[in-house]
Amino acid sequence: MANIITSKDNPVIRHYRKLCENKRYRRTCKLFPAEGLRLVREAVQADNFGTVILTQSAYEKYAGEFAPDLVISDDLGRYIAETDHPQGVFCVCRMPELSLETKPLSPDGRYLVTCDLQDPGNMGMILRTADALGVDAVLSCKSCEVYSPKVVRATMGAIFRQRIYELGDISSLSAALQGASIRSYAAVLHKDAHFVTDCKLGTGCAVWIGNEGNGLSEEAVSACAEKLIIPMQGNAESLNAAMAAGILMWEMMKGGTGDA
Amino acid sequence: MANIITSKDNPVIRHYRKLCENKRYRRTCKLFPAEGLRLVREAVQADNFGTVILTQSAYEKYAGEFAPDLVISDDLGRYIAETDHPQGVFCVCRMPELSLETKPLSPDGRYLVTCDLQDPGNMGMILRTADALGVDAVLSCKSCEVYSPKVVRATMGAIFRQRIYELGDISSLSAALQGASIRSYAAVLHKDAHFVTDCKLGTGCAVWIGNEGNGLSEEAVSACAEKLIIPMQGNAESLNAAMAAGILMWEMMKGGTGDA
Repeated sequence: MANIITSKDNPVIRHYRKLCENKRYRRTCKLFPAEGLRLVREAVQADNFGTVILTQSAYEKYAGEFAPDLVISDDLGRYIAETDHPQGVFCVCRMPELSLETKPLSPDGRYLVTCDLQDPGNMGMILRTADALGVDAVLSCKSCEVYSPKVVRATMGAIFRQRIYELGDISSLSAALQGASIRSYAAVLHKDAHFVTDCKLGTGCAVWIGNEGNGLSEEAVSACAEKLIIPMQGNAESLNAAMAAGILMWEMMKGGTGDA
Repeated sequence: MANIITSKDNPVIRHYRKLCENKRYRRTCKLFPAEGLRLVREAVQADNFGTVILTQSAYEKYAGEFAPDLVISDDLGRYIAETDHPQGVFCVCRMPELSLETKPLSPDGRYLVTCDLQDPGNMGMILRTADALGVDAVLSCKSCEVYSPKVVRATMGAIFRQRIYELGDISSLSAALQGASIRSYAAVLHKDAHFVTDCKLGTGCAVWIGNEGNGLSEEAVSACAEKLIIPMQGNAESLNAAMAAGILMWEMMKGGTGDA
């Protein structure tokens, strides 16, 4: 076995922790940390991993599966972990450099847009669901960072498979969608919105989901061709943003050719 | 203003904390705690509340809305709170005493069954979604307790509106469903399951959702008339239990008369 690292001051350990804690550092390095057996396996499968770190206990179990760059003490493993019961398996992953210029949207694609979505658990669940249902891409606009440890963990590995665009403003997002002749639907709680059951979601569609508390901004709603609502029997505010997104993605993926 | 309580040893405070921490105590008293403005408002609206506790700061804001039984110091409010940024509004609520004998299932009802579901966040999201979509009742069998503080918080108030049966074994659940001629569908990842898009979910149906890691037990699957699966394009394990339940409830609520 390699030397067992025990010091918090080891440069690889400092680098890993800084990737966990500091968004700006993640974005500058274009790297993000992944923790846990499942996520690291997915990273390896996606051929998206750099440094692999194993604790001494994890090394004894998984040395055949992962070739670690660093073996660390179990204590140090607990120090760098983001979870309460770490499995002692960590790696550093590359952010895919995906832009609307290098990889344009497809006219027959099906897309999910998040605007001002702030909860990492919701974002993780949306990415996980988008991957399971086969959504072509998630376009994350002014939402919580998709490569934060909380989001990455909540995706259960979908972060390595789901195509994700991160965008800073509605106008460029809207231009890209219109440029590809994608019809945008704003998910709102307005009374004049169409029931989703009356909309023909399918290929060539994008569904927009807004902030957990405030929904979509007026600017975002204006950028869409239609407003839609999930008919609800109980309290109109009762569907959580990720659940609403999931039901709308399901409707979009079931549908054939969308409305034009 | 009433006397401001500052002591952790005040009997009402001890009672409230014990309701937060001790499941057996909750079940013995048939009471559960609710925290936060939204939940307490929902409890009052549902006319389901006993003791109301406000912190001094909350009293200044909400004395017109809630008549507190106890006003406590802000420090004591932080002590009894389950959240990091408490609003200082707390109450004790009654568990509805709902049984299959006193309130039988209806042959044209639409039901969601959870078996061995363990995550409080998932349970809360399922109850919230069931309420929003108008599911007649959730039948919780051997799952995490629905009146724990974590579940109650995650329901965002649906706990006061959604009809919930708590059951200890599959055989009595199955007998009640069959007695009302409800057709049960097991949500599974089996290859021989029907696509949900090929099933006629609607009235007179119950959809069964299992444990997050292991799905439904063989006993549970055997108790159902059909097996169904949500068609997935990506990783077959990628849909979270609450999301799968949400999509299936949506399909059931959209449908008219179910298969018989």
